[in-house]
Amino acid sequence: MSSLTKVGQRIPKKDAPLKVTGAAIYIQDMKVPGMLYGKILYSKYAHAKILKIDTGKAEKLAGVRAVLTGADVPNNFKFGFLKDNPPLKTGKVLSARDEIAAVAAISAEIAEEALDLIEVEYEELPGIFDPLDAMKEGAPLIHEEFKSNVLKLPWKLVAGDVEEAKKASAYIAEDSFSTQWVTHCCLGTSGCIAAFDMNNNLTMYSNTQIPSLAQNDYLEALKTFGLKNKRVRIIQCVIGGGFGSKLDTYAYEYIAILLALKTRKPVKIVFSREEEFFATSPRQCTITKISQGCDKDGRLTFREMEMVLDNGAYVSWGATTPSVMMVPISSLYKVQNIKYVAKCVYTNNTYSQAMRGYGNPQATFAIESCLDQLAEKAGIDPLEIRRINANEPGEITPQNFRITSCGMKECIDEVANRLDWKGKRGKHNNRGVGMASLIHVGGAARVYKSDGCGTIIKMDDNGKVDVITGSSEIGQGSETIISQIVAEVLGINIDDINVINNDTDVCPWDVGAHASRTTFVAGNSALGAARKIKAQILEVAAKNLGEDPQSLDIKDGVVFSTKDKEKNIPLSKVLRKVHYSLGGRMLVAENFYDPPNENFDQNFRGNLSVSYAYGAHGVEVEVDKDTGQVKILNYIAAHDVGKAINPMLLEGQIYGGGLQGIGYALGERMIFEKGVLKNGNFLDYKMPTAKDVPPVQAVIVETDEQAGPFGAKGIGEPGLVPTAPAIANAIYDAVGVRIKDLPITPEKVLRALQEKGKIA
Amino acid sequence: MSSLTKVGQRIPKKDAPLKVTGAAIYIQDMKVPGMLYGKILYSKYAHAKILKIDTGKAEKLAGVRAVLTGADVPNNFKFGFLKDNPPLKTGKVLSARDEIAAVAAISAEIAEEALDLIEVEYEELPGIFDPLDAMKEGAPLIHEEFKSNVLKLPWKLVAGDVEEAKKASAYIAEDSFSTQWVTHCCLGTSGCIAAFDMNNNLTMYSNTQIPSLAQNDYLEALKTFGLKNKRVRIIQCVIGGGFGSKLDTYAYEYIAILLALKTRKPVKIVFSREEEFFATSPRQCTITKISQGCDKDGRLTFREMEMVLDNGAYVSWGATTPSVMMVPISSLYKVQNIKYVAKCVYTNNTYSQAMRGYGNPQATFAIESCLDQLAEKAGIDPLEIRRINANEPGEITPQNFRITSCGMKECIDEVANRLDWKGKRGKHNNRGVGMASLIHVGGAARVYKSDGCGTIIKMDDNGKVDVITGSSEIGQGSETIISQIVAEVLGINIDDINVINNDTDVCPWDVGAHASRTTFVAGNSALGAARKIKAQILEVAAKNLGEDPQSLDIKDGVVFSTKDKEKNIPLSKVLRKVHYSLGGRMLVAENFYDPPNENFDQNFRGNLSVSYAYGAHGVEVEVDKDTGQVKILNYIAAHDVGKAINPMLLEGQIYGGGLQGIGYALGERMIFEKGVLKNGNFLDYKMPTAKDVPPVQAVIVETDEQAGPFGAKGIGEPGLVPTAPAIANAIYDAVGVRIKDLPITPEKVLRALQEKGKIA
Repeated sequence: MSSLTKVGQRIPKKDAPLKVTGAAIYIQDMKVPGMLYGKILYSKYAHAKILKIDTGKAEKLAGVRAVLTGADVPNNFKFGFLKDNPPLKTGKVLSARDEIAAVAAISAEIAEEALDLIEVEYEELPGIFDPLDAMKEGAPLIHEEFKSNVLKLPWKLVAGDVEEAKKASAYIAEDSFSTQWVTHCCLGTSGCIAAFDMNNNLTMYSNTQIPSLAQNDYLEALKTFGLKNKRVRIIQCVIGGGFGSKLDTYAYEYIAILLALKTRKPVKIVFSREEEFFATSPRQCTITKISQGCDKDGRLTFREMEMVLDNGAYVSWGATTPSVMMVPISSLYKVQNIKYVAKCVYTNNTYSQAMRGYGNPQATFAIESCLDQLAEKAGIDPLEIRRINANEPGEITPQNFRITSCGMKECIDEVANRLDWKGKRGKHNNRGVGMASLIHVGGAARVYKSDGCGTIIKMDDNGKVDVITGSSEIGQGSETIISQIVAEVLGINIDDINVINNDTDVCPWDVGAHASRTTFVAGNSALGAARKIKAQILEVAAKNLGEDPQSLDIKDGVVFSTKDKEKNIPLSKVLRKVHYSLGGRMLVAENFYDPPNENFDQNFRGNLSVSYAYGAHGVEVEVDKDTGQVKILNYIAAHDVGKAINPMLLEGQIYGGGLQGIGYALGERMIFEKGVLKNGNFLDYKMPTAKDVPPVQAVIVETDEQAGPFGAKGIGEPGLVPTAPAIANAIYDAVGVRIKDLPITPEKVLRALQEKGKIA
Repeated sequence: MSSLTKVGQRIPKKDAPLKVTGAAIYIQDMKVPGMLYGKILYSKYAHAKILKIDTGKAEKLAGVRAVLTGADVPNNFKFGFLKDNPPLKTGKVLSARDEIAAVAAISAEIAEEALDLIEVEYEELPGIFDPLDAMKEGAPLIHEEFKSNVLKLPWKLVAGDVEEAKKASAYIAEDSFSTQWVTHCCLGTSGCIAAFDMNNNLTMYSNTQIPSLAQNDYLEALKTFGLKNKRVRIIQCVIGGGFGSKLDTYAYEYIAILLALKTRKPVKIVFSREEEFFATSPRQCTITKISQGCDKDGRLTFREMEMVLDNGAYVSWGATTPSVMMVPISSLYKVQNIKYVAKCVYTNNTYSQAMRGYGNPQATFAIESCLDQLAEKAGIDPLEIRRINANEPGEITPQNFRITSCGMKECIDEVANRLDWKGKRGKHNNRGVGMASLIHVGGAARVYKSDGCGTIIKMDDNGKVDVITGSSEIGQGSETIISQIVAEVLGINIDDINVINNDTDVCPWDVGAHASRTTFVAGNSALGAARKIKAQILEVAAKNLGEDPQSLDIKDGVVFSTKDKEKNIPLSKVLRKVHYSLGGRMLVAENFYDPPNENFDQNFRGNLSVSYAYGAHGVEVEVDKDTGQVKILNYIAAHDVGKAINPMLLEGQIYGGGLQGIGYALGERMIFEKGVLKNGNFLDYKMPTAKDVPPVQAVIVETDEQAGPFGAKGIGEPGLVPTAPAIANAIYDAVGVRIKDLPITPEKVLRALQEKGKIA
């Protein structure tokens, strides 16, 4: 590994110049000839009967080309994970973001104006905005056709015997924790352009994170609309942030499709910032009861959790977050007896979706906060209880995860050392330190039937390479990472490589940019394809040099014998030999990598990921007892990443994750009143900005994951997983109060201090 | 073959709806953000010293962003086959289309206006406009650095012993023939957009016929401009006709590149119709001396030809047409003794280039006109002399062409029968019949180091296929033909197939759309890739059906056992099994087909093409002795095509070729005075239009070429090869005069009738 020249280097993101100069084409910038502009009318109420919609005036407005209502949606089409969501609602609205009508016009301004001309009569109905209310006997049903507000989703994990373990425990801590809605705050808002060709094949310009799955979704929709056996092409524009928000298809996309079908023109819908806040799907808010126990030596004996998730009015893929929550619940630290039950509950709130970490931050907040409580009960240093129970290579966890590489202990120790844990802990002088660990999938996650990604590589006579990959660049740097991997294998430069990753017509299949899987899966896929090309090159070069292919390698554009470096031939010469000999060929290779991980069985057992990522975050805070303000003095984020393909990009992921985690912990919250978002803008929604960035030290722990490309594991999400509990634990160390309800606002800190009598 | 369901069908061109509705995006329609418009100032004279160029006023015009002259071309860059052509000229102009200066401005109008503000002082020099003058001792040198006006190109073919054969001949005919300049008349004029990214990689939007070779040309240019190790991407817009005109790179493309480099903006240059006429490169005009002999039975004994070609002022790939002229010269009919010498001569005329048939029409005009003269001398019916000497399968010709399939006799007989040759010939009543045969490359032509084409095919879960091919769609229908071939192999529909053929970033290498090679080479390439995919499908289906893959086939989206049709499984089910099993994959296959043909050796021997296309055209004319007007009463075009993949498209090629040939024979001619084009517009240049279309009967003779895809040979060019001599021979039959100088205008016919005393 010491001879690597591209992998492991701090290479700037290839797309950075495009982005910083404004040359990148986002969906906002995209225009296609003849394009119309679509706008959506949303419900006034979170729960109401629609008595009447009159679109007459809107239709007569000059420049309007189509007005659609639910009556125009063919064949009762619904989308979503449980197909409960019509793109335009009829009869009743179930949430304040319900789509009532849509307009296509020759300008966005005219479309907007037309919305104002649509007259809707409602009869407001009482809403249910608390999942606990929704679960009550006799609560009105959100969807009358389902007999219960509790979704029929089977979230239950049982391992060992929790009751027995409780009896055998020396110490038990139990408590309740809750988390809020937060949103992704993508700087590039959602949008698409739907365009049909003359054969009714659909092209969608989109910033989706799941081009291959979205393609399937749209095909299903087209079938329902009566367009069978059509083709769908997805072209991704440059994506201004994903974070999971673009891991599903949404009403606005189907509305654009319907408007395009009706008008026979391309139709563009782009969300305003306000829409991006209220009409996209946030992270699930959760209510968690947790109890954990340990023996007298601090070894964990059991973990029991019950969780209620506010699902909102419709079901997206996000309703499956409990499956990923199970990762830390079953496997964060060694604990054999596990019981976890989660209920997703329909309410008249906004519906939730995937967001970085996919449930893991919520679960880890409860686990890691409660672990400090348990440590206190047992009289053990929180650092020690983590060291005692830390995961180790070779472990098989209660969910049958097979732990390969694992640098959890190294991460904990890095955090403790760099934070001066021993020196700073337990001073209770308004300053305190806290830590929390994490486990996450690091080698993909088999949540769909395939977890694969395809790559096609072609190489020209001059040694330039086009890499056509299924993976999506959503800002995470996959283009650069894939270039490094391919350049390393083929002994060429990063600039010799062009990554094509945004067009389903040419890009092979990929399940999507989720589960921190891109470096691992797309990286392995590209690695395999590059090795096939290399084998072809070496075979031809071997004949030429009179050598065995096995004793040849490529570096800096030269094929050479590893036995005798004098024996060499320029790569471009080999390529021309391949091409310009009779029956010659151009070097093209393809590779589909589907990792050997497992779908869960019905008991939620199965090796979900080929490898697991670990980490520990430690934080030093100062609490202002007058204001309740929490200031982060120091932040250490140590991550077991297998191998850092590009330390600079990796650190970027960690900084970004940490900051997003700090926002989650200390400030961000979507405030709803009767289902209506009250702070849907950057002024009122407290996302940390540049001036809020604390000093974050990213510590990279390399454990050389054998299954990963050059030893790498995924690291996209973990950066925000343990942030909130680490901060909560540090606040407790500083001032002796524990905030169990995110975000930890100054008000909550002050109230807790008052309640504990620590301030007047 | 009888079971074919896609190949052999009359399937409409896939791109027809786009074109007839105006939805196709030609280079004329193409815009990229920030684009400037480039215009070129051409020379006033065909030969002159440039004393001074003053661009000061042009540069000051509002909206002008750059003005370039020859002084701005870095490092004395020249392009072209002999690298004798600077994109902007300095010192001297050598032809009236010489580029003197260029402007980039924010609109085409401003750029045009700026051209008028450029002041150039010339000193006119005497020009040489006749290649025979240019060859004279002491003629002024066009390029002083070359010691002669005769190009150092080695066009000489000798086989057998012509002198001995002459002595042994019973009859000899000899004469001189000449042909004119004609131009392609593409309805889509030439144009490009040159755009650099921030790393100085170049994207060219272009309507080139040779994306892979153009890529190399531009890379060489960039190197000379000091931009080393860059990438070039070619994106082809929809091409409004090629016919060979776009088989090279031209000054305007390098000028666009230089303007884009200077302005750091994309620069578009699109030719006006007038520029398309005078600034593109026409078919070579030729002067040919020919002599042919036969024995007393009419068997050809020898063929001797001497040819002078007006090369014009610069050398393009077109200067190599004599190599293709050798195909009919050496191998049209069985004749063992051959001598051919050609000289390409620099003049101050426009320089020539490739045009459909690439020299073959010029050579065939002489051969087939002279053959009728020989038949007359020998007292043999022209039909009979052709039958006697017709090529046959299994032949090896004097150039070492290995004739595989050959339907020449069938074509001759089809023409004779359909024309009622016996009934109509020899009446001399102002009506007459004539015929001529053709040979052309039909299985590619190895004129470059590689004659290959790559294909990548990927198939999705639903049986939809993307075919990424190196071949270019230039209107000839390759998109449709490739779809038929792939659909046939995979047992799916034409509409299931999407052909991607216009982007070097994703498309594999291909030598270009020339030599009637696309159906043969790209077809074979696609066929091979499709068969690889099919093999993968059958392998998986075989396991599932408990059958041997060899006994399975696919039709209408179902995989079935050929032994027991009850044993079957839907294709889409197989595809999902492949994809969604652990370690699954998406079906992707690639195939590079480089045909087993040969480059000529230094004696011009070698099997240039894997197979040869044959044909015969017959025509019945009526000559108006008062006006000299020739009217075509009947036109039979019989072609040995191996196998008609799509008879409708094939007929389209034949109709189009026939009409282009009729224009060449009877009317089209570029008229130059002192090197300046005088009829450069559609009014004065007599291209046949819809109202001139005679009744053309396309007769398809199938010979099942073993090396071709489903038996097919190439047929793009042949349609115009024998047209002119067939008409000339028919005129002779009608009124007893032979016109040996194309085009056969009414004036020439009248003059010949007068000279022969046939009219007063």
